[in-house]
Amino acid sequence: MSIKEIPSPDEEPQAQDPGLALSQKVRRVIFGKPLASENSESNDTLLRKLIALPVFCSDAISSVAYGNQAILLVLCSSGLWLGGLSHLYSQYLMTISWLILGLLVIVAASYWQTIYAYPNGGGSYIVSRQNLGTNFGLVAAAALLIDYVLTVSVSVASGLQNVQDVPFLHFLHLRHHMVFYCVVVIILVTFANLRGLRESGTLFAVPVYTFIVMCYFLVLIGIFGPHFGWQFHPEFANQIVPGSDATAKTVEAFSMVVLLRAFANGCSAMTGTEAVSNGIPAFREPKSANAAITLVVMAAILGSVFMGVSWLAVHFHIVYWEQNGLTSPSVIDQLSGTVFGKTGPWSWAYNLTQSATAMILIVAAQTSFAGFPRLASILARDGFMPRQLTNLGDKLAFNNGILVLGVFSAAVIVFAKGSVDKLIPFFAIGVFVAFTLSQTGMVHHWFKLKTPRWQGKAMINGIGALACFVVVIDIAAEKFFDGAWFVIVVVCVLLYMFKRIAWHYKRIAELLSPDNYKPDQPMQNTVLVLIHGVHAGTLTAIDYARSLSKDCVGVSIAVDPEQAQKLRTIWDHYVPDMELVILDSPFRSLVMPLVRYLDQVHAEKPHSRITVVITEFVTISWWQGLLHGNTGLILKLALLNRRDVIVANVRYWLNEG
Amino acid sequence: MSIKEIPSPDEEPQAQDPGLALSQKVRRVIFGKPLASENSESNDTLLRKLIALPVFCSDAISSVAYGNQAILLVLCSSGLWLGGLSHLYSQYLMTISWLILGLLVIVAASYWQTIYAYPNGGGSYIVSRQNLGTNFGLVAAAALLIDYVLTVSVSVASGLQNVQDVPFLHFLHLRHHMVFYCVVVIILVTFANLRGLRESGTLFAVPVYTFIVMCYFLVLIGIFGPHFGWQFHPEFANQIVPGSDATAKTVEAFSMVVLLRAFANGCSAMTGTEAVSNGIPAFREPKSANAAITLVVMAAILGSVFMGVSWLAVHFHIVYWEQNGLTSPSVIDQLSGTVFGKTGPWSWAYNLTQSATAMILIVAAQTSFAGFPRLASILARDGFMPRQLTNLGDKLAFNNGILVLGVFSAAVIVFAKGSVDKLIPFFAIGVFVAFTLSQTGMVHHWFKLKTPRWQGKAMINGIGALACFVVVIDIAAEKFFDGAWFVIVVVCVLLYMFKRIAWHYKRIAELLSPDNYKPDQPMQNTVLVLIHGVHAGTLTAIDYARSLSKDCVGVSIAVDPEQAQKLRTIWDHYVPDMELVILDSPFRSLVMPLVRYLDQVHAEKPHSRITVVITEFVTISWWQGLLHGNTGLILKLALLNRRDVIVANVRYWLNEG
Repeated sequence: MSIKEIPSPDEEPQAQDPGLALSQKVRRVIFGKPLASENSESNDTLLRKLIALPVFCSDAISSVAYGNQAILLVLCSSGLWLGGLSHLYSQYLMTISWLILGLLVIVAASYWQTIYAYPNGGGSYIVSRQNLGTNFGLVAAAALLIDYVLTVSVSVASGLQNVQDVPFLHFLHLRHHMVFYCVVVIILVTFANLRGLRESGTLFAVPVYTFIVMCYFLVLIGIFGPHFGWQFHPEFANQIVPGSDATAKTVEAFSMVVLLRAFANGCSAMTGTEAVSNGIPAFREPKSANAAITLVVMAAILGSVFMGVSWLAVHFHIVYWEQNGLTSPSVIDQLSGTVFGKTGPWSWAYNLTQSATAMILIVAAQTSFAGFPRLASILARDGFMPRQLTNLGDKLAFNNGILVLGVFSAAVIVFAKGSVDKLIPFFAIGVFVAFTLSQTGMVHHWFKLKTPRWQGKAMINGIGALACFVVVIDIAAEKFFDGAWFVIVVVCVLLYMFKRIAWHYKRIAELLSPDNYKPDQPMQNTVLVLIHGVHAGTLTAIDYARSLSKDCVGVSIAVDPEQAQKLRTIWDHYVPDMELVILDSPFRSLVMPLVRYLDQVHAEKPHSRITVVITEFVTISWWQGLLHGNTGLILKLALLNRRDVIVANVRYWLNEG
Repeated sequence: MSIKEIPSPDEEPQAQDPGLALSQKVRRVIFGKPLASENSESNDTLLRKLIALPVFCSDAISSVAYGNQAILLVLCSSGLWLGGLSHLYSQYLMTISWLILGLLVIVAASYWQTIYAYPNGGGSYIVSRQNLGTNFGLVAAAALLIDYVLTVSVSVASGLQNVQDVPFLHFLHLRHHMVFYCVVVIILVTFANLRGLRESGTLFAVPVYTFIVMCYFLVLIGIFGPHFGWQFHPEFANQIVPGSDATAKTVEAFSMVVLLRAFANGCSAMTGTEAVSNGIPAFREPKSANAAITLVVMAAILGSVFMGVSWLAVHFHIVYWEQNGLTSPSVIDQLSGTVFGKTGPWSWAYNLTQSATAMILIVAAQTSFAGFPRLASILARDGFMPRQLTNLGDKLAFNNGILVLGVFSAAVIVFAKGSVDKLIPFFAIGVFVAFTLSQTGMVHHWFKLKTPRWQGKAMINGIGALACFVVVIDIAAEKFFDGAWFVIVVVCVLLYMFKRIAWHYKRIAELLSPDNYKPDQPMQNTVLVLIHGVHAGTLTAIDYARSLSKDCVGVSIAVDPEQAQKLRTIWDHYVPDMELVILDSPFRSLVMPLVRYLDQVHAEKPHSRITVVITEFVTISWWQGLLHGNTGLILKLALLNRRDVIVANVRYWLNEG
């Protein structure tokens, strides 16, 4: 026999069998035409810098949509406002913004080094695991997985929050059905990914660049507009915090706390900064240099827009609050409304800014849909997550990982009732844990390698690690009861899961090792043929059973004793040379008597391997199928959990002579 | 081997396997403890006359709840009312009532004879089939099946209509959610039947006797009350027909038509009369005599209550109408409201009458739940319906028939939007077709047997047949466009189905006849072992394959070419003496390459019987199951429709050394 070489077709061949053809058709409708495995690493899919920026930086840049807002949320609800100390607000906001800018520079510098040190992709998991050991690597991985889920939830929720007031979307009543629309968007993004969206990176360029342009436009006009006689629309800036009838509090005592809390919230603006260093293999040559340049451009854009938004917020006295599920319009919305006007000749600019904000946030969610399945597949390959996460779908995407991410991020949205503000406290801690571990790993890396000028490099990464660690402590302390505790718990649960799965795979590998396999002493085959009636189908099965072994027995379950008697008579006529066992079934169950009989056979023939032959009818049309019981299926299901029985299906086709 | 005698336990034994134990538990929650087959014909379940009356006569007696009302519906909407001829109303109503009473006497007399002639149960199907041939038998069966479905729908709808105004049910808002509540009641009755409700016949006695007593009470007070100074409440009698602003019509011309239409509708009062003759085997000895007495008592009660209600309707000028889905209160409701008052000291009698009406109607629906599955199982036994309808459930009920009835009657309710009035035109025709055929069959019976005094008996049945036939013609003509046409179509469809099913079973029996079985020439066994990796599980499967045949091949599908290369190296080390075929799968499909390979093997070895051995892991806990792909299952499903392949599952238990 020499059938080894079946020619490999260019397209998946059409299935002939009707059942298979149907399933193939369904898959094509959902996933489109399958791609061959060899397409996986074609050079065409590598990204130019101009395209790489939107693909890898949308997550980071879009963070300005909720980062400044998260700071304002703390400042405005802190009591500063009520305590008559609203002048501190501007001061605090700018202080925090400068701190975050500094942090961004440090982190970007650290990742610059990572990009050159790990030209094949320096995700936090890989860097931490290689330098700090498996346990720290897994902590980073757990933190990142959580981060990916939250990025999707926060981005989608924030995206929809930003288009709540856009006139041409009023018909959706977004404000009142937030959770519903968020889940719809997540479902759409999930399906787009199952259909292989990641290849169409060019598509992302439009919203991302539009957002960047509009942000600069907004900031520039906000700052320099008055010089050219630009009229602002302060009626769209929200300057009242609800609940201002509360008594003034003594604020001095806890102003430091407010600062730390607001800073912790603001760090959400830095999420996504690590994306470039994960994605180095997708850049064109010279990969590291291109990636590093992209990182710097990204940090520059993020930093400048972030500072600009903070400055405008101070300038226009923007206020942001959340109470009982209601919020004021988002900060970006208030700013673009104030600068461009929600009505009037420049309202197009307002609409465009808000739409672009929503779009870049959805693109940012998309980034997670690339990152999560890839990280999960790496973890699965290393034996820490279920192996199915390494399966490539029809479009060469990790379908299972995509589905898991979709389900969890939708669940988070439902849990948080679609509110960005509720999610922020959960958000940044995972990111900064991963930053810290990754940078610490880099320090170790330099100490190990001692390449030229390693001390300086170690210093830079060391500062990065320290700064990020301080942020982690700050967030963990200030946001503990708001949600950070939950993230910590989930990290622990994930760690336990990783370990348990790894242990299971290891144990199974040992159990299954072919070296440990001891064949049983030469075993007899006992074949039981389940008999419902004596006919051509059964006789085929009996012939088959006899070809397998000399020890064959017919077994019938007597639901109706009269019929059983008839069966025996016919049996003795047609199959006189084989034993027929009729099992009494007083409760008309097919399953229980058979199970008990199998136990008995096992007891009597401990050295036999038992094969149960089940005859099944196959009818051509479905209505004919309805005319025959599904006894065979019931019995197969019933024997599903018996390790000691081999079930063989002999099918008998009904519509041919 | 002598395992034939496994002692038969008194109770179904507990399953050991966790999967089986769970399914057993679920079944016990739904169905309760299973009964042993031998309980099926125990003498305890035979019925005394006092209990048999409620069980078999509720359907007939409850017909007064909609019978008179159906007549009034036609009379009131006929134009008589508008034409200033409302005096004809009383005259017509009483004429029709007397006609129906006469018909009832004739039909009862005919069935009296059937009961003695067929002491083992004289259902219309059996009597027609034995005397008039299979075709007429099947027509009667089809008509009866439809009748059973409609009885459930009409009874439940009418039952709920009658308690719409009962104060203690106001909170249900029955009037506005009729369809919903009807379906809920049908679901409850269906489940009660799956749990073996039919055994608890005594339970029915209370509502049925309450209804009978309250009806007599109502009629007697309605007639004689005024002599004792009883005060009526005419405000609860509805005397206005909506739409009376229409112009007067010339009524004389079609008064005969109105009479015939109203009579056709009124015949719905006679549905259920045949129930006793179906149920003779359930009576105590002397069965026929007891059944006959029950029949007479039933006819007497039905006739007297029916006439009494008609008299009261005339006396109180009760009017009933249906327009745009709204109806006046039911006739029984108006009568008991007028006689007892819906408020005041006798309102309890109103409430009790209406509740009892609803209850007896639900009991009547229950009668169909006994009759339909029994008839369906007889038809299935005779090969005219799917065989699964003969299966006895845990409670010895024909579960499949019960479910079919529940689904169809609920569908009818939804279709008719819960309106009794919409259903009545569909209703009586099936019943009277069955009556006609059954009585004609009886005439033939007497001519064939010529027992003493057969001429007189044939005469009685002949009159019955003729009368029923006239009614059929009347209904078919007068109600044709209102729904009778649909019933006729359904009867034809059912007949076609019966014939087609019988043909299929006959053909299959021929095809499968063991006499026609020609064993193929001695065939070789080719065994293909699907290989995912080389480990203890696979090695077990390989050992098994080798014990079956010398022609064994390992087959692996190469989703990842690198891994395939590794697999071959390991294979050559551990299984050097068996061929391994690696199938290329450029689109990562497991199924298509295997299917194409099987085609190839078939072409090369036409005289081989191919067995595909699939190894499956069995894990103890569900989460471990998640860690292993379900490749085996996918492949099994894919091979489901291949007649030329036998699939054998070798299970490998993961949690034991």
